Amino acid sequence: MTTPPDVLDASDPLAAFRDRFVIDDDLVAYLDGNSLGRVPKATVERLTTFVRQEWGGRLIRGWDDSWVDLPVTVGDELGAALLGAAPGQTVIADSTSVNIYKLLHAAAGMRPGRDEIVIDATNFPTDRYLVESVADARGMTVRWLEPDLIDNVTVDVLAGALGERTAVVVLCQVDYRSGTLVDLPALTALAHDAGALVLWDLCHSAGVLQIGLDAARVDFAVGCTYKYLNSGPGSPAFMYVAERHVAEATQPIAGWWSAADLFAMSDTYEVAPTIRRMLSGTPAVAGIVAVQEGVRLIAEAGVDAIRTKSEALTAYTIELLDEAGLEVATPRDPALRGSHVTVRHPEARSIAEQMIARGVVPDFRESDLIRLGLSPLSTSFAEVAAGVRVLVDLAAGTRR
Amino acid sequence: MTTPPDVLDASDPLAAFRDRFVIDDDLVAYLDGNSLGRVPKATVERLTTFVRQEWGGRLIRGWDDSWVDLPVTVGDELGAALLGAAPGQTVIADSTSVNIYKLLHAAAGMRPGRDEIVIDATNFPTDRYLVESVADARGMTVRWLEPDLIDNVTVDVLAGALGERTAVVVLCQVDYRSGTLVDLPALTALAHDAGALVLWDLCHSAGVLQIGLDAARVDFAVGCTYKYLNSGPGSPAFMYVAERHVAEATQPIAGWWSAADLFAMSDTYEVAPTIRRMLSGTPAVAGIVAVQEGVRLIAEAGVDAIRTKSEALTAYTIELLDEAGLEVATPRDPALRGSHVTVRHPEARSIAEQMIARGVVPDFRESDLIRLGLSPLSTSFAEVAAGVRVLVDLAAGTRR
Repeated sequence: MTTPPDVLDASDPLAAFRDRFVIDDDLVAYLDGNSLGRVPKATVERLTTFVRQEWGGRLIRGWDDSWVDLPVTVGDELGAALLGAAPGQTVIADSTSVNIYKLLHAAAGMRPGRDEIVIDATNFPTDRYLVESVADARGMTVRWLEPDLIDNVTVDVLAGALGERTAVVVLCQVDYRSGTLVDLPALTALAHDAGALVLWDLCHSAGVLQIGLDAARVDFAVGCTYKYLNSGPGSPAFMYVAERHVAEATQPIAGWWSAADLFAMSDTYEVAPTIRRMLSGTPAVAGIVAVQEGVRLIAEAGVDAIRTKSEALTAYTIELLDEAGLEVATPRDPALRGSHVTVRHPEARSIAEQMIARGVVPDFRESDLIRLGLSPLSTSFAEVAAGVRVLVDLAAGTRR
Repeated sequence: MTTPPDVLDASDPLAAFRDRFVIDDDLVAYLDGNSLGRVPKATVERLTTFVRQEWGGRLIRGWDDSWVDLPVTVGDELGAALLGAAPGQTVIADSTSVNIYKLLHAAAGMRPGRDEIVIDATNFPTDRYLVESVADARGMTVRWLEPDLIDNVTVDVLAGALGERTAVVVLCQVDYRSGTLVDLPALTALAHDAGALVLWDLCHSAGVLQIGLDAARVDFAVGCTYKYLNSGPGSPAFMYVAERHVAEATQPIAGWWSAADLFAMSDTYEVAPTIRRMLSGTPAVAGIVAVQEGVRLIAEAGVDAIRTKSEALTAYTIELLDEAGLEVATPRDPALRGSHVTVRHPEARSIAEQMIARGVVPDFRESDLIRLGLSPLSTSFAEVAAGVRVLVDLAAGTRR
């Protein structure tokens, strides 16, 4: 018998954070914070103030006030709170896809003579598509890893693919389907031993666990802010370039915001010597402001406390699924998973649709996976219990 | 003697639109709507509703409700109201810089064997920098036009640079410094006669005049939405690809949003057959919602009425500047200018700073230009009179 959810909620040190979000009582359970996080109440206030007073009141003077530095100042805040990154290495800009594109070109350009990009075939589609596009443009070859869904990319899987031709390795820290957390420090070290650079996609890990980019000597990283960072649909993404690479990393979308002197309107292009060189066009200020609120909420709670709750939420979810005899497609060792739990079921699509009709929102991933996203700051154990109950009922119905 | 401004405001059919914007009474005059437009009151309401009810209430289901189509539906609205573009050719996405990059690659790829990109040396820096970057990546050469600041790119200036090597011509419809409006249909036809494609930057013209992209058989266009479209600092940009080119235009930032089936999470990349192929990453939904409000305000007033007022505002401004004996660096023929008027003065930087200190906001452009932006829906004649009076006083002070 599992512990009752109200007992778990009563002893949860982060329980009060749930009140910091807009919660719609029409929903029984929202288990998709790993796709789109809930709205922080602070963000509602901040955006209203931003639109009326900053944009409306300061108008063009807002750029001089603070907006021009926001990509870097909020990047530094995010880097410190979430990534284990010292200042000057992180910016908020564009989308994850655009940032992957920029960093792939930058990384490939730093390994002339090497012509392979390594990526796993289980990686998120946008990463795979962009690797193919950049490899094609640069006359490089894609070398595909074929890992098991649940084990994902292990040291053994990667080791066999590395060699003197490897320029860049592209990996996700947490797999978007299974929720598997791979060994970022070990895989980074392995790629470095082969002379390659590593680009980490942190979309499903940023905000729910300690990442430690500087400590692991990661080269490049990207991630989105609309999942566990609660910054809104299509909010701007982040990009990390290790300090030792900043002066050498050249991205091709050389817009005016990447120039050394933004407002000089110079006849000739001179790239900024700092992390600003990774920018391209005018930053989405309202979007970055929302990211700042999301980061501050995480910083206030602390990533260690968030990780502890995340492990408890995923363990509890797996316990409930096991009791019901459902197939779990997520590692059972908490050290090997992120903050979502995946169920494999032949009727996954239909069950997910019926869950939504009953007020429980998970998400479905082709062809037979239901993901239950557990966003530590806004998800309660009671919500998990109520949501899984509906899933279990529906799955039982398919057997009748 | 010029007509008193209150008489001009009293007979202005668009005068009431000024009340549709958040107006900060602390300012004597805001003459920089050509850099960052004022906040429409409707946008304040819409964003609040969006954050609380759409993002907060619908959460991930918002994508199915309508968000997934917004880049195209709002693109079509913008195309119809502002660009003279039939549906299916315009999307809202990314920044102007990222979009220029995408379209330059797409256009260059459609003219194999031609190795020159033509652009004027007076073009906005981001356009010039990106042309250089793309030309470099593709082994092409940049051919620079050197037009006069005020005449800008005439048919004669362009004709001399075109030939069998010309792949793409990149031009701004309204010059960001002088406000000169060039002859888009004639220049487009000239480039086509040489077998080249044309990419128009509409940043300083979109929203203040009839553009007629379809009628002029323009190939590609981009523009921003934070100026006369009043969508907020760093709001997403738009992109136009003529229907006859959509199936052939291939942009390199091949993220998941450019794929034929977005949520198939397919093993292999297949590009969308529609204008969606120009997308890359997850769209900035709140930003696009703000663009929609900006477009609807322009559609309600009508671009023809806006153009009529714009011509009256620029004529009135020039009249006041002439009276004061200041040097106008904008064409005197209303058919040859956009919606800002530029003053050339050796003390421009200092005068612009002092204007701001006195509550009049213009903007300064290196090295000796002050731009007075006249945003037809939110700028009154009284505001122009008050603003120019301060400029004239300060300029007179420099002669003492």
